[in-house]
Amino acid sequence: MAEDKLVIAGREFNSRLMVGTGKYASFPQMAQALEASGAEIVTVAVRRVNISDRSQESLLDYIDPTKYTLLPNTAGCYTADDAVRTCRLAREAGLSDFVKLEVLGDEKTLFPDNEELLKAAAILIKDGFTVLPYCSDDVILCRKLEDLGCAAVMPLGAPIGSGLGIRNPYNIRIIMENVKVPVIVDAGVGSASDAAIAMELGCDGVLMNTAIAGAQDPIAMAEAMNLAVRAGRLSYKAGRIPRKLYANASSPLDGMIG
Amino acid sequence: MAEDKLVIAGREFNSRLMVGTGKYASFPQMAQALEASGAEIVTVAVRRVNISDRSQESLLDYIDPTKYTLLPNTAGCYTADDAVRTCRLAREAGLSDFVKLEVLGDEKTLFPDNEELLKAAAILIKDGFTVLPYCSDDVILCRKLEDLGCAAVMPLGAPIGSGLGIRNPYNIRIIMENVKVPVIVDAGVGSASDAAIAMELGCDGVLMNTAIAGAQDPIAMAEAMNLAVRAGRLSYKAGRIPRKLYANASSPLDGMIG
Amino acid sequence: MAEDKLVIAGREFNSRLMVGTGKYASFPQMAQALEASGAEIVTVAVRRVNISDRSQESLLDYIDPTKYTLLPNTAGCYTADDAVRTCRLAREAGLSDFVKLEVLGDEKTLFPDNEELLKAAAILIKDGFTVLPYCSDDVILCRKLEDLGCAAVMPLGAPIGSGLGIRNPYNIRIIMENVKVPVIVDAGVGSASDAAIAMELGCDGVLMNTAIAGAQDPIAMAEAMNLAVRAGRLSYKAGRIPRKLYANASSPLDGMIG
Amino acid sequence: MAEDKLVIAGREFNSRLMVGTGKYASFPQMAQALEASGAEIVTVAVRRVNISDRSQESLLDYIDPTKYTLLPNTAGCYTADDAVRTCRLAREAGLSDFVKLEVLGDEKTLFPDNEELLKAAAILIKDGFTVLPYCSDDVILCRKLEDLGCAAVMPLGAPIGSGLGIRNPYNIRIIMENVKVPVIVDAGVGSASDAAIAMELGCDGVLMNTAIAGAQDPIAMAEAMNLAVRAGRLSYKAGRIPRKLYANASSPLDGMIG
Repeated sequence: MAEDKLVIAGREFNSRLMVGTGKYASFPQMAQALEASGAEIVTVAVRRVNISDRSQESLLDYIDPTKYTLLPNTAGCYTADDAVRTCRLAREAGLSDFVKLEVLGDEKTLFPDNEELLKAAAILIKDGFTVLPYCSDDVILCRKLEDLGCAAVMPLGAPIGSGLGIRNPYNIRIIMENVKVPVIVDAGVGSASDAAIAMELGCDGVLMNTAIAGAQDPIAMAEAMNLAVRAGRLSYKAGRIPRKLYANASSPLDGMIG
Repeated sequence: MAEDKLVIAGREFNSRLMVGTGKYASFPQMAQALEASGAEIVTVAVRRVNISDRSQESLLDYIDPTKYTLLPNTAGCYTADDAVRTCRLAREAGLSDFVKLEVLGDEKTLFPDNEELLKAAAILIKDGFTVLPYCSDDVILCRKLEDLGCAAVMPLGAPIGSGLGIRNPYNIRIIMENVKVPVIVDAGVGSASDAAIAMELGCDGVLMNTAIAGAQDPIAMAEAMNLAVRAGRLSYKAGRIPRKLYANASSPLDGMIG
Repeated sequence: MAEDKLVIAGREFNSRLMVGTGKYASFPQMAQALEASGAEIVTVAVRRVNISDRSQESLLDYIDPTKYTLLPNTAGCYTADDAVRTCRLAREAGLSDFVKLEVLGDEKTLFPDNEELLKAAAILIKDGFTVLPYCSDDVILCRKLEDLGCAAVMPLGAPIGSGLGIRNPYNIRIIMENVKVPVIVDAGVGSASDAAIAMELGCDGVLMNTAIAGAQDPIAMAEAMNLAVRAGRLSYKAGRIPRKLYANASSPLDGMIG
Repeated sequence: MAEDKLVIAGREFNSRLMVGTGKYASFPQMAQALEASGAEIVTVAVRRVNISDRSQESLLDYIDPTKYTLLPNTAGCYTADDAVRTCRLAREAGLSDFVKLEVLGDEKTLFPDNEELLKAAAILIKDGFTVLPYCSDDVILCRKLEDLGCAAVMPLGAPIGSGLGIRNPYNIRIIMENVKVPVIVDAGVGSASDAAIAMELGCDGVLMNTAIAGAQDPIAMAEAMNLAVRAGRLSYKAGRIPRKLYANASSPLDGMIG
């Protein structure tokens, strides 16, 4: 399994867990959680980084750039324009041109606005950005994002911060059958088993923030997620036994029970 | 978390994963899978061990008794008498008086015969055995087994070898609320996420055989299960975020959606 | 479909919905709910009927015996002896020798004590009763009850009054494959869709009480259940379309997603 | 409950079940199924109606326009232009300006292309059509459709013809919380219980075709769906009992089990 790397836009990663940096009690707690998670890709909300004034303490001071790949995100943007502007700002400040593109539809549910997302993705890709879009679990949308040149698609498992897990594994499965870029489940994971399920579906990776930062013990949960993503990936690659009504049943389940 | 040991009948274990030894392609493959699983407790079907003639190769030759706690089981027994006799035979052969008690109801579904199980457990406990019974996910039964003096209860997650995962987490939850001995989910696990789910429910351990031995790559699956059980336990102890319809919903889900 | 009758112990019924008579705000409300439900079999707790003194108002005054088949039940009995005694009392009072046998394991969860149930069933059947036992969703137990001579088996869908629906349709399915007497899901139903699901699994009938009596509008819920049981039965007999990942998928689902 | 009417764009309907007219073995079979379903709104694919040559037999000959509200749909359209043109054609032919708008993303999965859907909806509404759009279960999209002036939103329960039921009831719930126009679940229903579940979620109606036309006995399934939709609606209005781990549990479920 030594060769089982995640490849996004030509870059290789050993860990398939990506983590956010928001909602921690403190920067040191965040740094410890990142460490425990084993993540190599770390997302940072451009709006939360004090780009103009680097004299103040910043969460970037707690993320070793030689150890983590920084993935600036456009959290808090509600239009294509806004998201595009934010990405350009991040690039000018030297952050990265690898971006996680979020265009949210409202402040309450935090669901993506996929129409604006498509507009923003088209502009940013022409602009030379490597775009990883947070989107609905919609295969037609994912294929459009791929066709535009996105480096991956990041369908949600459930609403951001909901902890509901992957509400529609069927949709995720259909997306995987129909796009060639990596499929990263982004948002919705609540517990270790949720992360394992994502990986067992065959997803290329999982991105989460609240599940770790909001746990009672974020460091322990980060370690749990680290183990769970590896467990799920191994379980997927190892080839599980078929589901049957009982072991001696002559055929696998045929979806006869919903 | 250093102190988070599994304690059964006064014995301490670091691993919460217990594994069977049947259905492997070869004894060496089995030995490798045991190693990869990190298990400390290993069940062995008394009927499959050549107790009388130790000159022939035996699976026991592949299980280092200084490394693993051997747990003889009564697989293949369909009456209390049969199971009791098998346990006594095992003890006389010097195997152990720590036993996993199985009394099956039929050869097709491999569900337990709980009426016979209760009879056998009563006899064996009087006989000085430490009894871990494989049983239905039935709280009244589990409490009776506890009252008889069983050292743990081992309710099934789903039929043996079915790979269906924990079909009724509600029943497992109710059992945990109502017994004080360790609750080990035995049978039904198919993938790493199933094992993680068992642990996240708060179970004390998980026992499996087919999920590992029947996987296309049993060694990789054994490692997956090793990671998954640790992930699930850590996730349980770390205190997960509440499930909500969306992050800003004012209250957690109230079971409004089935 | 004119011939699709439910037959229990040689008696024919047009309705596959059986209802209880407890927990209503008043007897008249109960009578209206019975009417709306279309049920032909109505269970009555022997302990709640004032058998000795018929001068006082009784729920029996509100149930027309020419319209409903009365099914006395042993609610509130916690031992075989107690249940047997209660059935004999009912018979002596002229209630019926058709009985719904309940032997509960505790007052909190109301799960059956299946060990005591088997004892009571054996005695009552020898005594000439027609026994319909409320039991766990355990195929081995159900077969034993059938072998004893029970006229039907009544596995629970979920704990009495829980409203959780059929928690383990797999178990119900396995029971139906393995017994020949009618299988009636008893307990757990919360809404109309739960009742429909029971019937779509191929069950012969559904018994419920709290779901109707505890609804905000019991009469409307009784009507909903009436329609739902007929809908589910028709849906089962009509032969549903196979489940597929999408319509043009080449094969039905293979249980690949849990 | 006499007043419990479905109101769409000012028109009142007694039935909350809408049905399609494709995939039947014959027109007479279709006519019988429509009758058994009790539906008042019937969708017709404009492309399947021979609009130009009315001398030939047409499915319209089998649908009594005094009994059913005809809802022309744009099945088979893959772009906004195509869908708009099809609606105009239907209007010119005197069919209706009440339209079910479908813009599909591909021929394999039959998922909607929501980007094209928004374009088509905007044009058609300006053009004076009353638009009922088939769309993803995406709250942001549904709100945009409502803002454009759609008379209802018709999120899918699962892919067309899949029979998977409502794969993501959480999304449907969130949509209902956030739009004011009627929410009709369109596509995915496979059995009567699926239809009942849709109604119990509080949806205003259900639209289906394959579930009925593809059943082994379409007439019986149509009747099952008729009953199921009424059962589910009544169950929703009657106020179900709360879900609890068991009846005496002190609090309802808190989403603690996924």
